[in-house]
Parts: sequence; structure tokens; C-alpha cells
Amino acid sequence: MNAERRTPVTVIGLGNMGAALAAALLERGHETTVWNRTPAKAAALAARGARVAATPAEAVASSDLVIACVLDHDALHTVVDPVVATLAGRTLVNLTTGSPEQAEEFAAWAAAHGVDYLDGAVMTTPPGVGSPEMMFLYSGLRTAFDTHRPALEALGDPLFLGADAGLASLYDVALLGLMWAAFGGWLHGTALVGADGAKATEFAPLALRWLGGAVNAFITRYAAQVDEGRYPGDDATVDVQIAAIDHLIHAAADRGVDNALPRLLKATMERTHAAGHGGDSFASVIEVLRKP
Amino acid sequence: MNAERRTPVTVIGLGNMGAALAAALLERGHETTVWNRTPAKAAALAARGARVAATPAEAVASSDLVIACVLDHDALHTVVDPVVATLAGRTLVNLTTGSPEQAEEFAAWAAAHGVDYLDGAVMTTPPGVGSPEMMFLYSGLRTAFDTHRPALEALGDPLFLGADAGLASLYDVALLGLMWAAFGGWLHGTALVGADGAKATEFAPLALRWLGGAVNAFITRYAAQVDEGRYPGDDATVDVQIAAIDHLIHAAADRGVDNALPRLLKATMERTHAAGHGGDSFASVIEVLRKP
Ligand SMILES: NC(=O)c1ccc[n+]([C@@H]2O[C@H](COP(=O)([O-])OP(=O)(O)OC[C@H]3O[C@@H](n4cnc5c(N)ncnc54)[C@H](OP(=O)(O)O)[C@@H]3O)[C@@H](O)[C@H]2O)c1
Ligand SMILES: NC(=O)c1ccc[n+]([C@@H]2O[C@H](COP(=O)([O-])OP(=O)(O)OC[C@H]3O[C@@H](n4cnc5c(N)ncnc54)[C@H](OP(=O)(O)O)[C@@H]3O)[C@@H](O)[C@H]2O)c1
Repeated sequence: MNAERRTPVTVIGLGNMGAALAAALLERGHETTVWNRTPAKAAALAARGARVAATPAEAVASSDLVIACVLDHDALHTVVDPVVATLAGRTLVNLTTGSPEQAEEFAAWAAAHGVDYLDGAVMTTPPGVGSPEMMFLYSGLRTAFDTHRPALEALGDPLFLGADAGLASLYDVALLGLMWAAFGGWLHGTALVGADGAKATEFAPLALRWLGGAVNAFITRYAAQVDEGRYPGDDATVDVQIAAIDHLIHAAADRGVDNALPRLLKATMERTHAAGHGGDSFASVIEVLRKP
Repeated sequence: MNAERRTPVTVIGLGNMGAALAAALLERGHETTVWNRTPAKAAALAARGARVAATPAEAVASSDLVIACVLDHDALHTVVDPVVATLAGRTLVNLTTGSPEQAEEFAAWAAAHGVDYLDGAVMTTPPGVGSPEMMFLYSGLRTAFDTHRPALEALGDPLFLGADAGLASLYDVALLGLMWAAFGGWLHGTALVGADGAKATEFAPLALRWLGGAVNAFITRYAAQVDEGRYPGDDATVDVQIAAIDHLIHAAADRGVDNALPRLLKATMERTHAAGHGGDSFASVIEVLRKP
């Protein structure tokens, strides 16, 4: 594994996610130093070859690349503020979840103290860490990303979004919002067909094929329409969808399935119609979601 | 193309969808008879080899397999009721969109008149017709499906859902509901990252990769949980998602993006928490969507 040619890395925070990050780095042969507030969580990693630092200062001093993943930004400040002098001249990659504004605050703090800063978001759960298919989003200092890309590749597929440190968090919440909406629509459909006896495991393969096929193709087409600000309704118009969603609402009401989600979607389409987009594609809904 | 070995097919209704169906059948070498209320719409198909019937009776008499796709079920009754004697002993495949109840009503009408009946749903727009990747859902008489499967394969990938004629429509609206929810989540995310300058065509590839990767894997896992009625929260619990969705809501509020969808999703998660599933996976949301 050419361990001697890989960058030494420090991981701060060994909760579910931090421990998975450290394990993936060890797996790829990185000299890995770890620190956690509760030291016991380092034991399993020590058995796999991690060096356990006794203090945050020792942890930070061990590597030019420091990856942090703790509960939240306040917790991370508690750990790194006292050792900022040691952190100066090194790279801090912050994989702690937070808002874009918190990321920008951390980036400004880092810049003021001579710390190279990358903010990041982990788009998987701990078992997915280490798979090249999983997305890790980064934003902030491009040179830090380029320098440490090989180490970041041990964790997943690293995607750089831009110099604004808040972008990784912004995309993170945007993608999570898509996930929750898709979960909501899928569970509503599952409850609906389930009322007539279909199993969730019968519906899911069709739902996934539908998402990956026709819905994927629509989103690709609609993205270009959004950027152009023109929404030709040549496939299916908002008005056609308003008519069709009534079939869903009635079928679900007949079966006692909660209709809050389809009703909200219908109301949003009706606002889009009222804004003059009845003959346009569903992509025109973005016009009523944006700041007026 | 072995046209002589393919079943003759009649297509009733030559709107956008019916015309695409007839074109796909001609393309695959089926002897295709067409009829439309407004005869002019048959001209382009006649030029490609379709026989144009002068009346519904002539259309129905031309083939053992009759595929109908008109505006709605009332319109279809207007066309086929007067020719039901000719339809007897043949197969009617109804690809007109409607509710499960309308499909069952049509199936009962067909059974009472000796017509073999399949209800269907087209899970694509007209340009997708003819592609083996596109799903066509069918339910009703299994023998009719098996007999005419080769002809139905000319239109797309035919999937038989069960003997209950309403199932195709039920799955249709369930899948459309998933699509609208996914569109809603995607457009919300697009508006959110767009507020900070990201283009829709930059966000869409990540959104699609996320849907096809991590979200797909969650849905597959959660479907099994729904069928088991047990929702272990070992990846991410409802309570963790409730905390995370606040980041989305705040980021969107700061940017003036409409928050109705995330707020509804959060409220649904909170109801799920209140029902005792805070430590369970998101799949447990189905418990609050179903009839109490
Ligand atoms: N788990 C996931 O699926 C997932 C996915 C994407 C992103 N994330 C994000 O990754 C981060 C960590 O999540 P996790 O799943 O690893 O959570 P976790 O298992 O609860 O671990 C939390 C970590 O934060 C540390 N911590 C908390 N408060 C601290 C403080 N005041 N000072 C120092 N350390 C403190 C904990 O140390 P102790 O051991 O001493 O308590 C522990 O190492 C979160 O921001 C989360 O949103 C998680
Ligand atoms: N387009 C799609 O993307 C799509 C996708 C899935 C399902 N569908 C479903 O396919 C069906 C047809 O859609 P479409 O896109 O083809 O619509 P369309 O272009 O508006 O065509 C409607 C068809 O219905 C006929 N029709 C309407 N009222 C009639 C009546 N009273 N008697 C006889 N014929 C009548 C029309 O005949 P005239 O030409 O004489 O008006 C025309 O052939 C609908 O149920 C739709 O929901 C469409």
C-alpha cells in the first residue's frame, strides 16, 4: 500500500462518522493520528494501527492535514481554539455538519489565524465511507483541496464546489431536502399501493426505476430550462399535472392515506398556474419558490 | 421485420400519446389500423403505412387487439359503447389515464360484454414510446397480457401488476406522486443553491447522482423495513433528521426561498417522533401516513 508515500493525517472526533473516516484512512495506508474527547473510542482504531494523541495539541502537531468531524461547530471551536497556533500553516478540513453561515464563520476564523481551510459535507452514512461512489463535497481554499486530494480520495469521491466556504453546507442541505422530499413521495406511494395489498418491496423497484429513468430525464431537461428562464411545456404542462394530481389525491383519500404532501404540491402548482405558467413545464414552479 | 407474423393492432385515439403508440407499432412491423374523432390526425400515420378506419366499428373489426388512448374514460365510453358487440371476443387495452375506480368500472363493463380487458398506464411521454427502457404498467386479465405481450413490447417494457384492473392506475398515481415530490425537492434545492450563484445545470448532476446512489440505497433498505414493520434507526434516526432539516429551513429562509415543502416534511417527521419513532429510521414515517 506504499504507506510511506501517503500524507500523514489527523482525525479529530471519533463518533460514528469520525471513526469511519479514520478507519478509511488507515485502510488506505495513511499514517493516522486520532483524538477524541472520550478517549475510549480510540481503542478500536489503535488496534488497527492508529496513533492515539493524548491532547488536541499533540493531534494537530502530528500532521499537516487535520480532518475534524464532531457534533457541531461550537464543539469544534472548543477543541481547536486553544491550539490555533499549532494549526497555523496546516490544513483543517471540517466535515462537521453546519449551516453555510457557520462554515463561513469558521473560514474567516481560519484565515485570520493562518490556517488553510476547507469545509466539507459527507454525503453518506458511516458504512459508505471509503467507497469511491460516495460524494464528499468541499468548498474553500482550492489549493488545499488540490494538495490533499489523494488523502481525501481515501474517504470517497471528493467534489470541489467553489471558493466560498459555505457552498459545501449549502449543497448538503439542498441534497438532503431532495432526499426528504423523495422519501416523502415514495412513502406516500408505498402507503397508497399498500392499501390495496402491494408490498413495499414490490413497489420500491418500480419507484427506483422510475426515478432513475423518466424522472432523471425530466430533471436533466428541466435544469437547462431553469438556467434559460424558459419552460416550454412541450412534454407535460403544469395544467396537465394539476389535473393528474387530483387522481392521486382522490385515490389516497379513498384509502385513508394522509394527503398533506400531494395537497401542498397541488397548491404549489396552482400558484405556478396563477403566476402565468399553466402552459409551461413543471420546471416553472421554481419561479414561485424563489424570493419574489 | 416479419410483419406477417405480428398481430394486427387497432389504435383508437391519435392525440399526442395515441399517435406515438401507433407509430411505435408501425415501426415494429405491426399491421396497424387507426381511428381518431378528428380524422385529420390520421394523415401522418397513413403516410407511414397505417390503415385509416372510417368508423369506430370498422376500427374495432380490423384487429383482435384494440389499444385505446383518449382524453379520459368518459370519452372512451362514447367511442366504444356503440360498438361493444364487435368488441366482444377481442382484447381492449385501455391506456387512457384515470383513477383505479374508473379502471375497475371499465373492467366490469368489459366483462359484462365478453370483452377481454387490460387496463394500463404509460410511464413516459410520447417521445419515450417505443423504448424498451420505458415502463408500461398493466393490470386485469392475465391471459390477455400473456397473449398480446409481443405487441405490447413494441410500446415499451410491459409490466403486469395483477388481476385487479385498478392496479395499473394506482401504481401510476403513486409513481407520479413520487415524481412531483422529487421535482419539488429538487427545485427547492435548485432555488437554494441558485441564490448563491450555482446554476441549475451544476446542481442537477449532483442531485441525480445522490438520488441514484445514496437515496436509492436508503429506499431499498427502507422498503424491507416497511414490509417487516420494524424500522431500526441504525443509519440515521428521525430525530437526527429533524435536527438536520432546521439547517435547510434556515438556509432557505435566509435566501428568501419558499419553505412550505421542508416545513411540511419537518412537521411530518415531528408527528412521527410524537408517535414514538424518534429513534427509528425515516421509513417509520409511513406509520403516520397510513389510515389510523
Ligand atoms: N452519522 C452520519 O450518518 C453522518 C452523515 C453525515 C454527516 N454527519 C455529521 O458528522 C458529525 C459527527 O456525527 P457522528 O454521527 O459521528 O455523531 P456522534 O456519533 O454523535 O459523534 C459526535 C462526536 O462529537 C464529539 N463531541 C461532541 N461534543 C463535543 C465537545 N463539546 N467537544 C469535543 N468533542 C465533542 C463526540 O465526542 P465524545 O465521543 O467525547 O462524545 C463525538 O466524537 C455531525 O456533524 C454529523 O451531522 C454524520
Ligand atoms: N401525453 C403524455 O405525456 C401522456 C403520458 C401518459 C399518459 N397520457 C394519457 O394519454 C391520454 C391521451 O393523452 P394525449 O397526450 O394523447 O392527449 P391529447 O393529445 O389531448 O389527445 C386527446 C385524444 O382524446 C381524443 N378525445 C377527446 N375527447 C374525445 C371524445 N369525446 N371522443 C373521442 N375522442 C376524444 C382526442 O380526439 P380529437 O383529436 O378528436 O380531439 C385525442 O385523440 C390521456 O388520458 C393522458 O392522460 C398522456
